[in-house]
Amino acid sequence: MDIKRTNEIVLLYNFYHSLLTKKQDQYMNLYYVEDFSLAEIAEQLQVSRQAVLDNIHRTVASLKRFENELSLVKKTQEIDNVASELSQIVLKHYSNDKELLRLVQRISKINEM
Amino acid sequence: MDIKRTNEIVLLYNFYHSLLTKKQDQYMNLYYVEDFSLAEIAEQLQVSRQAVLDNIHRTVASLKRFENELSLVKKTQEIDNVASELSQIVLKHYSNDKELLRLVQRISKINEM
Repeated sequence: MDIKRTNEIVLLYNFYHSLLTKKQDQYMNLYYVEDFSLAEIAEQLQVSRQAVLDNIHRTVASLKRFENELSLVKKTQEIDNVASELSQIVLKHYSNDKELLRLVQRISKINEM
Repeated sequence: MDIKRTNEIVLLYNFYHSLLTKKQDQYMNLYYVEDFSLAEIAEQLQVSRQAVLDNIHRTVASLKRFENELSLVKKTQEIDNVASELSQIVLKHYSNDKELLRLVQRISKINEM
């Protein structure tokens, strides 16, 4: 199984890292954020390269399961897309409707919660 | 600490139950959904009443931590509120704007993802 650095995994990690154990978080951070190699992580943490690989595999599987169950990434992206399209229409055609503008702003802010 | 049945906990449980272990899920379901007493759960699972209580306390703390980290409940409620207010305004004043109606529908559907 190839676990090369991918945007998808980093995205999942950014959303769900708080659900990982400290150890899982540490391995993921070293590999995907700090960009260390498996061998370098193994040496630094005094474990085998295979142990690092297994740990990262399991964590990636957990992250995918979290998204499968909670859909946070998918929802966040849809909110961004809808907010952006809605904002364009409202600013172009209904910019005098304060109430509508206020609601568009509220949608844009949901992802900051 | 009083852990009586509360709407807030049931709501958190509904959102995050997939992140619990099988055992945690079982205890929570018996107590908050099936409405068994601590003593009844203890008898059924052959553990002490205190063990049941401790387990549920820890699980409730986990559920609160999940919401604190991920804000899924808060975001879902805000999406519902904004979708509802937006829908009223658009149907009342801009019901001839198909594009706007389509976007309102997309917002309403985010929580079904």
